[in-house]
Amino acid sequence: MTTRTQMASEIAEQPEALARTLDALRPLRSELAALARGTRLVLFYARGSSDNAAIYGRYLLEVQARRPAAMGAPSVATHYRSDLDLAGVLAVAVSQSGETEEIVETARWARDRGAKVVGVTNAQDAALAQGADITLVTRAGAERAVPATKTYTAQLAAMAVLGSALGPEDREFENGLARVPDEVATMLQTAPGAESMADRLREVQRLVVSGRGLALGTARELALKLGETCYITTMGLSFADLQHGPIAVLDTATPALLVAAADGPMLPGMTELARVVAGRGSTPLGIGGDQGFQSACTAALPGPVLPEALAPLALIVPGQLLTEALARRRGLNPDQPRTLSKVTQTSG
Amino acid sequence: MTTRTQMASEIAEQPEALARTLDALRPLRSELAALARGTRLVLFYARGSSDNAAIYGRYLLEVQARRPAAMGAPSVATHYRSDLDLAGVLAVAVSQSGETEEIVETARWARDRGAKVVGVTNAQDAALAQGADITLVTRAGAERAVPATKTYTAQLAAMAVLGSALGPEDREFENGLARVPDEVATMLQTAPGAESMADRLREVQRLVVSGRGLALGTARELALKLGETCYITTMGLSFADLQHGPIAVLDTATPALLVAAADGPMLPGMTELARVVAGRGSTPLGIGGDQGFQSACTAALPGPVLPEALAPLALIVPGQLLTEALARRRGLNPDQPRTLSKVTQTSG
Repeated sequence: MTTRTQMASEIAEQPEALARTLDALRPLRSELAALARGTRLVLFYARGSSDNAAIYGRYLLEVQARRPAAMGAPSVATHYRSDLDLAGVLAVAVSQSGETEEIVETARWARDRGAKVVGVTNAQDAALAQGADITLVTRAGAERAVPATKTYTAQLAAMAVLGSALGPEDREFENGLARVPDEVATMLQTAPGAESMADRLREVQRLVVSGRGLALGTARELALKLGETCYITTMGLSFADLQHGPIAVLDTATPALLVAAADGPMLPGMTELARVVAGRGSTPLGIGGDQGFQSACTAALPGPVLPEALAPLALIVPGQLLTEALARRRGLNPDQPRTLSKVTQTSG
Repeated sequence: MTTRTQMASEIAEQPEALARTLDALRPLRSELAALARGTRLVLFYARGSSDNAAIYGRYLLEVQARRPAAMGAPSVATHYRSDLDLAGVLAVAVSQSGETEEIVETARWARDRGAKVVGVTNAQDAALAQGADITLVTRAGAERAVPATKTYTAQLAAMAVLGSALGPEDREFENGLARVPDEVATMLQTAPGAESMADRLREVQRLVVSGRGLALGTARELALKLGETCYITTMGLSFADLQHGPIAVLDTATPALLVAAADGPMLPGMTELARVVAGRGSTPLGIGGDQGFQSACTAALPGPVLPEALAPLALIVPGQLLTEALARRRGLNPDQPRTLSKVTQTSG
């Protein structure tokens, strides 16, 4: 008899979920490129884990595809019903269930105001697809644990396909994308290290998670996971925002989890941040980075061998394992956090 | 002999600082409108408190001025040096000192890529002004306490002037804007209530601050103030994001501070949130709202009599008073939080 949680099973399913999703979505690249022709701005609309996937998409579009991109605010559609002119906008609406009313309504609003709309959802025939010009249906399969894991990385894969479709040809990026399922499989081997790190965090009530640029969404997602699953008050912040004030909260009782890709322009700053965190009497714990970054951390889990632009697809996996292990150690059921349900409706 | 902190003095100076700033900036409206002609998108670049002012600006532009607006990511300029085409973009770069290298560099980058640039700073002759087409110089006067108070509300005033310049004629908005200094003066009278609320929060280590839409920036700014000045681990979240997971962290040891304008489409949801928070065994503390909102909270400080689009200019004031009072109660010096300095450079 196994005692494995649903969340642990779904974390382990990610290599296959990603391979299926990439196979299904890559053929849509030329259709996406055609839809985006004539648009000058990509706006992402999402909530929760989908929002964290969209933050990755936002950076990927600007850095990899060289397309101006930003996060849209759903409440401008749903509550203020603002009559914006969205001609020239490619709106990307992301919802795992495809039924989150707020995002479905926002997608419809954007389309009515002249935007081209791409829906990203894990459910064929979702309401979201009705109002979209193209729907990217991720192939994560049914997700039963409340905390999103395989549906989140499948959304990241959809973002990567979008980046590939809208950007210039980039052989290194394409080769990296093909290697993602294998790299995620390798990341599953960090489970014993994640268990040790969970031991260290067993009693922690407050935590700061930080990453920057392409890895900011990873930091936010890890902060969300630890908050919703382990009830730790967690601030998920960019390295830069952390320096502008919140760094004052770090102390011996408040460790910092730092996430970084193995290369790219953010790595030196993240390594320096690990040293600053240690210098404040707090504990820097790392995920990813290179040798120098890991040495600057008190403990670290290795990250994937992927270019920075693709690292987020695998970099979250040790964090998922950490979250699941920590929830169990705290006597919590990671599959069903208190008061959360799978399809979140934003009421009010 | 007075024991008043510098921060308390600067909070009290806000009615005059706002009146001076509005007098100085309103005459620039036609020049701003001319610069914005032909642009289709407003992008804000900022960090820290300036970023929270920009979040207000972002909503104000979309809701009041009906101009698509979003937050830009400075690291795309400074670290990724992405070669985006920013023709048709009005970039608004906000820095209190006007010397934060990251924002100065980002403004220059945006201009080089075809954007029109508006600088917002409290310092005449700041480096930021060199790379801007128009600079809105706020008139807060020298700010000596590290936590921004009067420079923050002066930035909000600059955002309101920008919203007025780029939006349709709106008599109610203009009348409200003229009343802002008086409303801020009235808010200073909430000091005794803020002292009582600080008593309640004396031992708190974790806190959630929530607002939505036009008041989201206020919630973020209050979270930042409490984090940097009182070292409380504070999550500043939109009401909607809170529902998508982080609401699980609320418990008897983690109160929620809720900020709301006295009217507008967000108020029913914020009132409902106060009830949900109380139902979870946590303590809802309110700032602003109407009678129903305040009744749903365990304790509340009144907010200004201003339309929702202008409420943020005064709604932060009870929160500033709360922060200053709480720092003193915790034996901390609000004027000089640990390891922060006035001009923050984002290193790395």
